[in-house]
Amino acid sequence: MNTNLYGTSLSLLTDLYQLTMAYAYWKSGVRERDGAFHLHFRKAPFGSGFTIACGLADAVSFIENFGFDESDAEYLATLKGNDNQPLFESAFLDYLRDLKFTCDVDAIPEGTPVFAYEPLVRVCGPLIQCQLLETALLNIINFQTLIATKSARVCLASRGESVLEFGARRAQGFDGALSASRAAYIGGAAATSNVLAGKLFGIPVKGTHAHSWVMTFESELEAFLKYADAMPNNCVFLVDTYDTIQGVKNAIIAGQKLREKGFEMIGIRLDSGDLAYLSIEARKLLDAADFEKSQIFASNDLDETIIESLKAQGAQIAVWGVGTRLVTGGDQSALGGVYKLSAVRDAGEDWQPRIKISEQTIKVSNPGVQQVRRFYDEKADGQSNGRTALADVIYDGSTPPAGNCLAFDPLDITKSWELDGSTPHQDLLVPIFRNGARVYDAPDIHTTRSFTQQNLAQFSGGVKRFVNPHLYRVGIEAQLQQTKTRLILKARQK
Amino acid sequence: MNTNLYGTSLSLLTDLYQLTMAYAYWKSGVRERDGAFHLHFRKAPFGSGFTIACGLADAVSFIENFGFDESDAEYLATLKGNDNQPLFESAFLDYLRDLKFTCDVDAIPEGTPVFAYEPLVRVCGPLIQCQLLETALLNIINFQTLIATKSARVCLASRGESVLEFGARRAQGFDGALSASRAAYIGGAAATSNVLAGKLFGIPVKGTHAHSWVMTFESELEAFLKYADAMPNNCVFLVDTYDTIQGVKNAIIAGQKLREKGFEMIGIRLDSGDLAYLSIEARKLLDAADFEKSQIFASNDLDETIIESLKAQGAQIAVWGVGTRLVTGGDQSALGGVYKLSAVRDAGEDWQPRIKISEQTIKVSNPGVQQVRRFYDEKADGQSNGRTALADVIYDGSTPPAGNCLAFDPLDITKSWELDGSTPHQDLLVPIFRNGARVYDAPDIHTTRSFTQQNLAQFSGGVKRFVNPHLYRVGIEAQLQQTKTRLILKARQK
Repeated sequence: MNTNLYGTSLSLLTDLYQLTMAYAYWKSGVRERDGAFHLHFRKAPFGSGFTIACGLADAVSFIENFGFDESDAEYLATLKGNDNQPLFESAFLDYLRDLKFTCDVDAIPEGTPVFAYEPLVRVCGPLIQCQLLETALLNIINFQTLIATKSARVCLASRGESVLEFGARRAQGFDGALSASRAAYIGGAAATSNVLAGKLFGIPVKGTHAHSWVMTFESELEAFLKYADAMPNNCVFLVDTYDTIQGVKNAIIAGQKLREKGFEMIGIRLDSGDLAYLSIEARKLLDAADFEKSQIFASNDLDETIIESLKAQGAQIAVWGVGTRLVTGGDQSALGGVYKLSAVRDAGEDWQPRIKISEQTIKVSNPGVQQVRRFYDEKADGQSNGRTALADVIYDGSTPPAGNCLAFDPLDITKSWELDGSTPHQDLLVPIFRNGARVYDAPDIHTTRSFTQQNLAQFSGGVKRFVNPHLYRVGIEAQLQQTKTRLILKARQK
Repeated sequence: MNTNLYGTSLSLLTDLYQLTMAYAYWKSGVRERDGAFHLHFRKAPFGSGFTIACGLADAVSFIENFGFDESDAEYLATLKGNDNQPLFESAFLDYLRDLKFTCDVDAIPEGTPVFAYEPLVRVCGPLIQCQLLETALLNIINFQTLIATKSARVCLASRGESVLEFGARRAQGFDGALSASRAAYIGGAAATSNVLAGKLFGIPVKGTHAHSWVMTFESELEAFLKYADAMPNNCVFLVDTYDTIQGVKNAIIAGQKLREKGFEMIGIRLDSGDLAYLSIEARKLLDAADFEKSQIFASNDLDETIIESLKAQGAQIAVWGVGTRLVTGGDQSALGGVYKLSAVRDAGEDWQPRIKISEQTIKVSNPGVQQVRRFYDEKADGQSNGRTALADVIYDGSTPPAGNCLAFDPLDITKSWELDGSTPHQDLLVPIFRNGARVYDAPDIHTTRSFTQQNLAQFSGGVKRFVNPHLYRVGIEAQLQQTKTRLILKARQK
């Protein structure tokens, strides 16, 4: 993905300040200083009780192809400061051209439910390299995590019925469409209309026909019959070009002709009007004409709220075509993920924790080189793979919880809870790169999609409901909390 | 842009139904039938009184590179219908591989203010080709038009002060970032932080430094001094890592050291807290220390509403860094553009107008092969290039208005108005392709950006205000309205 867009190296897909900071690190004699950066978000999107981590495979591919070419250096040489002199000296551009990636990267696998403040990706290594990855990592992980979460919610609303992602025409650019198709599939969508996403990622592709097909002919019935003649094995008739109920009747006539030739009509599609009423009426007409197995597809600015409402009204819709709001996030168009420095060290020394404070408590960062531990109740039933997630604890990797685990609410230190030391658990961040070399093989996309479903099954229904979801417990482990409090007090004293 | 993403042909960046319809046209013996399609939207984004057309240059590039390669055909050959047989016969795949683009395309140039129902792009030619372009054209034009409009609004709010686009980390994919940088610049932003957008499009790039720079050192002052040493010609100090007012004081110390070495501090950046209060206090401190020319930059989830409010509060901000909401549209993440068939013809015959009706009046399409005429008042003052836009009329290109021009409201036929035949006017759609060959050279991006400003100056302040903007008049010309009414009544009678 990252080497060929616009036929150019993509390592300049970064904010200028990453390069000016890289230059300043290089000039200031701290180019060998290591940093530990964590990518996390502060608030789940859509008011959701959970978020689905996504984008890691593309992030890995970006990192593997990271590097500046001659044209990048030539471009950077043209940039000027406010004295109209070059921003960068040429020795630095040589340094960039020769730069090899040597960081350690750990991350939470795609498809894992994650929560505010948990590091989805951790990058440890020379400050310059960590900094130069920030913008691209945020771009990839923020967007795909947003869309995988939206998709999981839409699929929860459809209660197991197929969701088709139909969003390419309203997506934010070509990559906005392709990345969204990928993330929507990982989140649970059954297929996409985007043929290139099918070709590149192996996602199933689906489609019906448009109003233009109907309008090309003298009558709707003629249009349906011609389509049935041409593509008898792919007939989902769009019935709302002129009058929906008449459209269903015409589809039934076309379906009968199909059947005479040994084919079955897959179904009909509704794209406007009162989808609850029309789907119920259409279902009656189809059943009465012996088309019980023909499915009703629906589309028209759907999202999880509308689907839940249509189902509550008894809508007879079997396949949900969801476009704009699935591929863009609708009224929440970005996950506000950030990438924060939380420790530094010079060669041969220990990590020194760092914190960024703020008048807004939500914006205070967590220090240290962090890991996330998920605790489980393994007495739960078999449906949840034998375990239910109980709570997550963010801790400093150098001091894992021993014995009982005491943890504090990230936003309110007066709230704490304790878990028995024998509680089954798993650390969520796994090694991805070591000293610049990839040590992780991303699973194929179908495996990742199943992994999402298995993981979601480990969370209670309350966490997954849309209105006032149950707040899953995430805490800062006691020793890390102590470090954090100490650093905040020290920073405020200054 | 369109040939190298993912190192593959991009012509499959389309909805599957475009290909199944193409196949059905091909099988049904209407492959030589021509269609006329119009890309338009039904509602301006953000409640805006105007919309800025954008994306044409990328659409032209996509069309010029249109064509299916061997790998596309191989992939399509793997797709199956509900009888588990191939969807497409191999003769059709051969046809696709040999397909040459032969359509006529007309479009409204980028940077032009446009309104609901006006065709931004018109494609006339073989139905199959028109259909195969739909998804990509909508993807490109919908997104870039959304962002150019947002940018124009943000720049109106800043009243001529610089707007910097800082959105790459929250954009929807890499192309979401790059296309947004391009559209934001065309809409009026002064620069981007996205270095690759600078390299590819020639947009100025700007940046400051991040909190991580400050946190790398033992103290904020040390961090500022190190940065000033390393990059004396690019100093915008981020002052809110620990305590904003103390940060400003530290920046002033660093600025004084800079001045001793013959450099000037560009300014400081605020990224959190009460931007109105803090900018006023910071301005006082800077002025008192003889840094009157150092500018205050601000960022933190800004948009046109927040900027307008900050200005009303007397905020002393000179440069506005706008990220997420500029590059994604914020709570409106898509322009709902559509691409509708409005006429068909067989070889050697006249165009037959077509209409799509709907129970929702807003979704009824306009028939014919359309053009848009903009009428002007040339008695206006010189500020507006000597003319003010009065009204737009959508008419059938085959019957241009002669004499006085009578036009009807697209949503309410009881509202009409008439313009004197001698009113100065200009047709907005210009030829882009003729019989598949490009006949249009897109202007460079800087010229397009100026064109936007010149065009916006032709519209009254009322059209450009954010709350309850003045409704600029757009009408359907009387003869076209007659055709439309006739077709609606005919369709309803069926």
